[in-house]
Amino acid sequence: MSAFDALMGFTRETMALAQVAGRLGWDQETVMPRGAADQRAEEMAAMEAVLHARRVDPRVGEWLAAVDEAALDDVGRAQMRHIRRSYARNQKVPADLATALARLTSRAQGQWAEARAADDFAAFAPVLAEIVRLKREEASALAAGGDLYDALLDDYEPEAKAADLQAMFDALRPRLVALRAAALDKPAPKGVTGTFDEAAQMALSRKLALAFGYDLNLGRVDKAVHPFSSGSGLDVRITTRTNPADPFNCFYSTIHEVGHACYEQNIDRAYLLTPLGQGVSMGVHESQSRIYENQLGRSRAFTGWLYGQMRDAFGDFGIADEDAFYAAVNRLQNGFIRTEADEVQYNLHVMLRFDLERALIAGDLAVSDLESAWNERFAADFGFAVDRASNGCLQDVHWSVGLFGYFPTYSLGNVYAGCLNEALRKAVPDLDAQLAQGQTGAATGWLRENLQRHGGLMTPREVITQACGAAPSEAPLLAYLEDKFGALYGI
Amino acid sequence: MSAFDALMGFTRETMALAQVAGRLGWDQETVMPRGAADQRAEEMAAMEAVLHARRVDPRVGEWLAAVDEAALDDVGRAQMRHIRRSYARNQKVPADLATALARLTSRAQGQWAEARAADDFAAFAPVLAEIVRLKREEASALAAGGDLYDALLDDYEPEAKAADLQAMFDALRPRLVALRAAALDKPAPKGVTGTFDEAAQMALSRKLALAFGYDLNLGRVDKAVHPFSSGSGLDVRITTRTNPADPFNCFYSTIHEVGHACYEQNIDRAYLLTPLGQGVSMGVHESQSRIYENQLGRSRAFTGWLYGQMRDAFGDFGIADEDAFYAAVNRLQNGFIRTEADEVQYNLHVMLRFDLERALIAGDLAVSDLESAWNERFAADFGFAVDRASNGCLQDVHWSVGLFGYFPTYSLGNVYAGCLNEALRKAVPDLDAQLAQGQTGAATGWLRENLQRHGGLMTPREVITQACGAAPSEAPLLAYLEDKFGALYGI
Repeated sequence: MSAFDALMGFTRETMALAQVAGRLGWDQETVMPRGAADQRAEEMAAMEAVLHARRVDPRVGEWLAAVDEAALDDVGRAQMRHIRRSYARNQKVPADLATALARLTSRAQGQWAEARAADDFAAFAPVLAEIVRLKREEASALAAGGDLYDALLDDYEPEAKAADLQAMFDALRPRLVALRAAALDKPAPKGVTGTFDEAAQMALSRKLALAFGYDLNLGRVDKAVHPFSSGSGLDVRITTRTNPADPFNCFYSTIHEVGHACYEQNIDRAYLLTPLGQGVSMGVHESQSRIYENQLGRSRAFTGWLYGQMRDAFGDFGIADEDAFYAAVNRLQNGFIRTEADEVQYNLHVMLRFDLERALIAGDLAVSDLESAWNERFAADFGFAVDRASNGCLQDVHWSVGLFGYFPTYSLGNVYAGCLNEALRKAVPDLDAQLAQGQTGAATGWLRENLQRHGGLMTPREVITQACGAAPSEAPLLAYLEDKFGALYGI
Repeated sequence: MSAFDALMGFTRETMALAQVAGRLGWDQETVMPRGAADQRAEEMAAMEAVLHARRVDPRVGEWLAAVDEAALDDVGRAQMRHIRRSYARNQKVPADLATALARLTSRAQGQWAEARAADDFAAFAPVLAEIVRLKREEASALAAGGDLYDALLDDYEPEAKAADLQAMFDALRPRLVALRAAALDKPAPKGVTGTFDEAAQMALSRKLALAFGYDLNLGRVDKAVHPFSSGSGLDVRITTRTNPADPFNCFYSTIHEVGHACYEQNIDRAYLLTPLGQGVSMGVHESQSRIYENQLGRSRAFTGWLYGQMRDAFGDFGIADEDAFYAAVNRLQNGFIRTEADEVQYNLHVMLRFDLERALIAGDLAVSDLESAWNERFAADFGFAVDRASNGCLQDVHWSVGLFGYFPTYSLGNVYAGCLNEALRKAVPDLDAQLAQGQTGAATGWLRENLQRHGGLMTPREVITQACGAAPSEAPLLAYLEDKFGALYGI
């Protein structure tokens, strides 16, 4: 057996084990008996130990050194790039630092939840300070003299640079602040009223999942507290949630997760259980969930179809016609919480976190000053004051589990979605006529063909660039948002 | 860290991984998307490879050699006995033989299913002959000069001997053949009629599970094609099935699996994720499922309570009173299939298989003669002829996956259940009065206290002996069956 075949065989087995570990997470959030948590923690830790040992297995280093890359085709070289990158990353971080971080963050998640419940940032600050200290150490090990934050960002968005993101975000932020303020200055559109049967919400959810091309023969839809998509290849499952008063929460959570899931389902089957066989980055993943959810799912055309579906399922819910429904689906509201934010305000939440976490990692902001920095920035962008820590700097789990460099990929995903939407609309001129019939096939087919099927073959930036015919830019997203909400709000 | 602590830490991690692998099986039978089968096979194989590597890891041998057993308490010595036993077993079987068996049996299961569907034993015979050949090789490696069949039996019922089982079965068989013939000579009791709503069956199933002490906070009940119990410790799940025409299938499958599951749930929590933390053998496991299902669940007293429950759930189903219901629950019918057999006939099915598989492993019966040997024996015990292979020697999956030595543990479980029932009835004189109220607490509490909590602390024979105050014997089972069915059928 060649070194390449041996390396790929070993890697394939590792990826199969990673799927098993991931499915334990799905199980935990959907079907696990409540009392099983302690045993489950040991099971998860045992799986992580197995996976970690394989990721730093010295045989991988030997195989990597022995492979004749010149003899490989493009796909083989792309596989090598992923394996080399992941192995080098894990070699750089000292084992005791990795262990310390794993221990600390596993404990910190509970401490964060307690502090959030008590609205007490001071109780969590010492833990967070220790996490920041260790993440800075990890970043130093990874950066080898380069930018610390870039080294962390690279885990979620390979080869992205914070300075490039900053340039995009600097262009977005003032225009979104202005758009937000102008829209909220106008009369608020009417929302839905009444109670929406939860079983009927789930039934329409499945219909929406199918409408967006999700393959239920290779997946399933369940309920969970927080919607998510889980798995790669032939077993990609999504969850959603229902709220009797707010059917949009269910439907747009479903469409969002279907975007993630279809990306995984539509990757070339030849890449199954290899490094190429999963979404290439968090940003590109989010671009798929967001374009499904927003540019397609919240479009005037598609909401027209959805209005009919909802009338059939729920009767009268206080919205007179398709135009009023479109306004209701897309209405802006003041709020503290990122995950509940609309298309316009969402990125403001993300940029706030991006700037603060960059300052933390750079050493320019002390954790003890984080809450006041957060509140000051929030007031500047949103025009009102944070009332308590659970509505402010304690609202997200990310930092407590050591995720620094993750937040900006949400907005990068929106930027990518803007670029893809522009290219898609050029490629499919009658898209709206199809969406108005609940037909997404032309759109999802274009995304599958131009982006999804490639999996990890190219870098994130490359795959967006070749799909769009131009390098990523924030301009299409900005134009889309200003056009859409300008029209909706008469700005 | 002492060698013992290191060994236990490693073993605990292995057991956690085994729980994960087991739960993949649960997932596959209950919630897995249909199209995921190919990927799942790779995931299972990867988990098996990890588990196998740990089971033969040379560090285990070093730790085993280094532990000072004299310094351990009883529990520690019992842990050592299990670990030593399992390690020695895996050391004895050459790696290439283990691999060959795994490959062959993984393929053979599909070939068996095809042959069964075609009622064509000749199509499967060559595959089975190869399995028998490799199992004989495996048995030779394990037996080290001892009895081949005993070496295989030991995998499922540690320290049991085929000769001892044979003596019990020889005492049982003629009396059961006679009891069966006498009962079937009498007019058949009336069965239930009508259609039984499947959701209502599942609701009553959950009620029955709770009535028998199953902890739903540490488990769950789902539907599957074949009912099973899965997992140990804090996450023990059962499945059942529904048939609109036959509610007893659902209810008694549930009670049977609850017996297995409660055994696992009731083991001393101090043994969690250790070799002591699971049922000690197949026979003892089956004794729990069978005593829950039969001696308790099919008793006159408990069926009286169940009759009321079923009347409440389903109204009139053609059975006039509790006595008629008791007769309907326990009625004997001619049939070919082991898994559908009643208490009297079940063991005859098992003994047939035991005698045939002993002869196969001894080399006294050629696979080419198996079908005729089966049919001849069936006619002798059951009084009518097998009509086709799927009703005869192709009905069970066991041999196709290499399970030789497993069948007799079913009847051994019934023998143990007979012994335990005798002791239980002495210990709890008013048991029937409690069962008549749907109260199983005294019975299941006695079983938990005297047997279940010990897990793997003693050998199978030891745990039955100390619970019953006497060595296992077929006499109590025989007396129970002859009394019960003698009275029911007026024999």
